Amino acid sequence: MSDVKIYQASATAPVNIAVVKYWGKRDQKLNLPTNSSISVTLSQSDLRAHTTASCSLSYSSGDTLLLNSKPEDVTNARIQACFRELRTLRSHVESCDSSLPRISHLPLRIVSQNNFPTAAGLASSAAGFAALVFAIAKLYELPTSSTDLSRIARQGSGSACRSLFGGFVEWQMGKLDDGSDSIAVQIAPASHWSTLKALILVISGSKKDVSSTSGMQATTKTSELFNRRVETVVPANIKMMQSAIMKKDFETFAKVTMSDSNNFHATCLDTYPPIFYMNDISRATIRLVEYLNCILNRTVAAYTFDAGPNAVIYYQEEDEKLVVGHVKGILGHVDGWQGRGATVSPLINDGFDQRATELLHNGVSRVIMTGIGDGPISIVESLITDNGKPL
Amino acid sequence: MSDVKIYQASATAPVNIAVVKYWGKRDQKLNLPTNSSISVTLSQSDLRAHTTASCSLSYSSGDTLLLNSKPEDVTNARIQACFRELRTLRSHVESCDSSLPRISHLPLRIVSQNNFPTAAGLASSAAGFAALVFAIAKLYELPTSSTDLSRIARQGSGSACRSLFGGFVEWQMGKLDDGSDSIAVQIAPASHWSTLKALILVISGSKKDVSSTSGMQATTKTSELFNRRVETVVPANIKMMQSAIMKKDFETFAKVTMSDSNNFHATCLDTYPPIFYMNDISRATIRLVEYLNCILNRTVAAYTFDAGPNAVIYYQEEDEKLVVGHVKGILGHVDGWQGRGATVSPLINDGFDQRATELLHNGVSRVIMTGIGDGPISIVESLITDNGKPL
Repeated sequence: MSDVKIYQASATAPVNIAVVKYWGKRDQKLNLPTNSSISVTLSQSDLRAHTTASCSLSYSSGDTLLLNSKPEDVTNARIQACFRELRTLRSHVESCDSSLPRISHLPLRIVSQNNFPTAAGLASSAAGFAALVFAIAKLYELPTSSTDLSRIARQGSGSACRSLFGGFVEWQMGKLDDGSDSIAVQIAPASHWSTLKALILVISGSKKDVSSTSGMQATTKTSELFNRRVETVVPANIKMMQSAIMKKDFETFAKVTMSDSNNFHATCLDTYPPIFYMNDISRATIRLVEYLNCILNRTVAAYTFDAGPNAVIYYQEEDEKLVVGHVKGILGHVDGWQGRGATVSPLINDGFDQRATELLHNGVSRVIMTGIGDGPISIVESLITDNGKPL
Repeated sequence: MSDVKIYQASATAPVNIAVVKYWGKRDQKLNLPTNSSISVTLSQSDLRAHTTASCSLSYSSGDTLLLNSKPEDVTNARIQACFRELRTLRSHVESCDSSLPRISHLPLRIVSQNNFPTAAGLASSAAGFAALVFAIAKLYELPTSSTDLSRIARQGSGSACRSLFGGFVEWQMGKLDDGSDSIAVQIAPASHWSTLKALILVISGSKKDVSSTSGMQATTKTSELFNRRVETVVPANIKMMQSAIMKKDFETFAKVTMSDSNNFHATCLDTYPPIFYMNDISRATIRLVEYLNCILNRTVAAYTFDAGPNAVIYYQEEDEKLVVGHVKGILGHVDGWQGRGATVSPLINDGFDQRATELLHNGVSRVIMTGIGDGPISIVESLITDNGKPL
């Protein structure tokens, strides 16, 4: 019977880690940011959200979303905004071509899985909303560009718009009240600078104090320094970062990445009451990166921290032995090395601050070695059975 | 023999803890600040520098300074500046009154002792330079006002100028290139608000990364947010703080104290490379103060942090049981309670974050209970013998 047909499509989408940070909304409902931002898309081999979108008249319980086997509340305004936008586009396509099945009004069943622990605080919502929007767009066979999809994903989770592209991505803040010009664009594909690598240190311990959304609200409302970040610091960092990426100038890339991360966390500390995302272990990571760049007498590594204690260290493939090798000298006992990162000379390790070494040794629970990667991809592997049951 | 006469005078001077912070010099040599600051002078019963200044023709080895039984280098430009200014004033007095002994050219022997560990990082240089300048002024019998002495002490250590007064003190940044208008003035004496108390948590562990002097230089040079602090944030905080002090309005006093401390540390974090003075234990103290103010539904305590991890918590005498009692519930095992601060209901303690409680329990090495106090005083007790030997 055609009326119980199950339509479905599957996709994966990547995590992205900003090098010029998004912090602050000028419109809460539309997720319009107070400043532009730039990110690096990480490889989906290591970190990805996998989503199957399906719809069917046989889905009697209305729209549903299963995330890592747990039902999510789809009445959430952000999820609703994505569903509504995508349904409107499908309905338009249907109205233009009477041969197409009428599926825009059918209940949606979305099943999504991350290949990394959500609790690790690794920008999972960005990958999740990008995969959700991309999978539904494919289910609906929409002729929509990635930039148009980024506008929709942004309404789910701001930084999700950047996960619609691979490589180096700018989220242009836009100026319009309706958010139609607040979109992601690709600065350069992953292939432009494929030797850029990322080492993630997952730092255990304290749960996040303050969610990104409420943290941003508090900062925009109470920080006296925040306007300066938005008006002066970020526009300068965006320009320097665009140029550094085009020239593959790691030194400038690193400098802007580190100082923008610090600048963002400074506005968090200037919030009232103050917000702290980094802890003593995060700071030990900063000291380690500074130490490496200092003893090697050139910039081989750059740290950055999102709204949590985990560190992301960017480096270039040719320096992997130096950077990863050195970190492994301290963190050899934790999971995630994949047999890589031979320990470098203990002479180098020995010179590093003993207390910071101990903090890292005891405080990092695992590492993830990854690199720059591509945008969302359609895949065949489905998370639901042919008769629509979640696997 | 009169030519081997030992002239001497002794004084003590207090520590001061800023509630609107000094950070940044517009002139390195003269210690001229980029912004005005306000501090509270703490009681000398608990924290003081004790200095004996003496001079004699019999002192053959030139000027000397013994600080906590350790010889200091008096060729240091800052010490030299204080000596020079005071000698010039004495020499002027001598030239006006021929009956006075000619002592301005005699070698100085200064002996100084703090009644608290210098290593604790408790603004010891402020108390030290204030005591040094005050003791020499007394030795020279100078008719100089405290404000004029503050101008001299400032050249030794910027914040020392504020330790020339008791109570609530403003260091007015001034505008002139020669620093003659960069002086301390008293906003109100200690008696104006004698119920203001301070509880200091001495946080053990990591030594200071970056000295105040080099930290300030780095911040003024590299922080993009620093100008905003200097131009907008501090002038507003100075005004609010002056008014809060005059009105004894603890809520505003507390709010400005806490947000100015955070704002200062935010500019440190925005420095490149970043400077961190607070650690996880400092942050646990912030959480504790926030928790107390929240469960009691009014502002009973305010935290502030200088260029180091130690916390100073201001509160009012009438809330001592609540504030000190609560802190003692966590830190009862450390030194410094003087039998005060009965533990309050465990119900209140139980609600506070377990991880922050552990950090405080293990990371605070002692407490100092003190209050607001007076400026430098002349005392008889000398640190040298009648024949000029250090005791």
